[in-house]
Amino acid sequence: MSETRSTPTIGVFDSGFGGLTVLAALMRRMPHARYSFIGDTARLPYGSKSRRTVARYAAESAQFLVREQGAEFLVIACNTASALALDAIQDAVPVPVLGVIEPGAAAAHAASQSGDVLVIATDATVHSHAYKAACAAKNLRAYEKACPLLVPLVEEGWINHHVTDAVVRIYLGELTSDAAAAGMSADTLVLGCTHYPLLRPLIERAAPRGITVIDSAESTADAAAALIETVVPSASRGMSEPTEIHCFATDSVEKFERLGSRFLGRTTGKVQLVDLGG
Amino acid sequence: MSETRSTPTIGVFDSGFGGLTVLAALMRRMPHARYSFIGDTARLPYGSKSRRTVARYAAESAQFLVREQGAEFLVIACNTASALALDAIQDAVPVPVLGVIEPGAAAAHAASQSGDVLVIATDATVHSHAYKAACAAKNLRAYEKACPLLVPLVEEGWINHHVTDAVVRIYLGELTSDAAAAGMSADTLVLGCTHYPLLRPLIERAAPRGITVIDSAESTADAAAALIETVVPSASRGMSEPTEIHCFATDSVEKFERLGSRFLGRTTGKVQLVDLGG
Repeated sequence: MSETRSTPTIGVFDSGFGGLTVLAALMRRMPHARYSFIGDTARLPYGSKSRRTVARYAAESAQFLVREQGAEFLVIACNTASALALDAIQDAVPVPVLGVIEPGAAAAHAASQSGDVLVIATDATVHSHAYKAACAAKNLRAYEKACPLLVPLVEEGWINHHVTDAVVRIYLGELTSDAAAAGMSADTLVLGCTHYPLLRPLIERAAPRGITVIDSAESTADAAAALIETVVPSASRGMSEPTEIHCFATDSVEKFERLGSRFLGRTTGKVQLVDLGG
Repeated sequence: MSETRSTPTIGVFDSGFGGLTVLAALMRRMPHARYSFIGDTARLPYGSKSRRTVARYAAESAQFLVREQGAEFLVIACNTASALALDAIQDAVPVPVLGVIEPGAAAAHAASQSGDVLVIATDATVHSHAYKAACAAKNLRAYEKACPLLVPLVEEGWINHHVTDAVVRIYLGELTSDAAAAGMSADTLVLGCTHYPLLRPLIERAAPRGITVIDSAESTADAAAALIETVVPSASRGMSEPTEIHCFATDSVEKFERLGSRFLGRTTGKVQLVDLGG
């Protein structure tokens, strides 16, 4: 598994296809790699499920990527799985595993002057307080808010829609007033869900002036590239191999193919159905 | 299983807790029964999943209710499972099984003068065209529309909220203009999802004048009561036994207990966690 090759195989996992925003960011940095992406669409959304359930589901997908697809590195492109199950995934497979929380917190640390950070995410990510803990480890204070309507709005395709604008303004209004009431002067907002980058223009318009928006997909791709570069230097520089993408889903292949290109910024190609027995 | 007793055990199944609106309607008609309700919350929502996956999940829950809880009748209080998997459930258990689609279509038939009916439901229910088929069997024409944002809005608690009002008006506006363009003169609107009765006041305000709104929870409870009455006459009339409710969920017990009372109109009591192995 740790044999050095010119073309690394990078496994990317999400509960759905939102993590394709992370895959897109990885491909921009490391075009000369083979990517296997699995979306556990039969069991999504993870955002409303318990730690125990998310850990079991995520470990099964991680094992598929390593055992069946030969992944040498795993990127958990799902905030909920990173927040609730990173340890469980690391225990389940013998390869390096990177989640999105730590890189997101690192980017917030680099961006924030005040040391106070806002985080928007799913219910499960917020209740895990994973961002709060990752930020606290860097002496940042984080105020987290669950925004459960944003994923369905993105999946409905209402990316630039007045209803989505109204919902974003309600959520951000509540978040900033609650954070201010708690004595915080936040200058940074972390998008703690891989669906949210699609709403970035709308979120930037609705956010208070002077707030820096952090996309954890981008920060995660930076961290992954740095890690993989130490093992396979050709992944970012080599000229030999074009990008190779293999996409798998546990259900809803048509929906994945139809909506996935919106997240990936190019076609996903043929998505293969996989049965994880769940 | 078919032994006649004074207190029947009625199993009620949903992918989540929306089906508690059906349980509430059943309890009003048959207060002297023992109810076991299971919400497959670990794997919800079914509304975006394939027929194959929904059938497997639903059969497991149905078997739990019959084998572990001794249910003598099953009510599938989930439009998606009724639409995609009623046959699979009937094959999986040896007791009578009633879904929500057929009673909803029967109520639409009784209500409609024009013979043209509108149906709002989840993605999966609409794509199955189960309502269209059930209506066609009664010489009704049905025009179906998926409204995927309504369930998340109800679960966010935005029952009487201006955003929900805007979303309902968009969906109903598109539905009525598309149906009119198809040459239909609809006078009846079927709520084809067990979450939607909570939005009934808002839907009635947004619907065109003269439209009759049909709640399939109520029609299903009528049909179930008629069926069960033939076997256990005391279920609706007897004085002896108070209503007994046992609620089970495959995940998110806290969320179930917190939100469930909104659907049931009374407390759910303690919800027990069940592992269906998925």
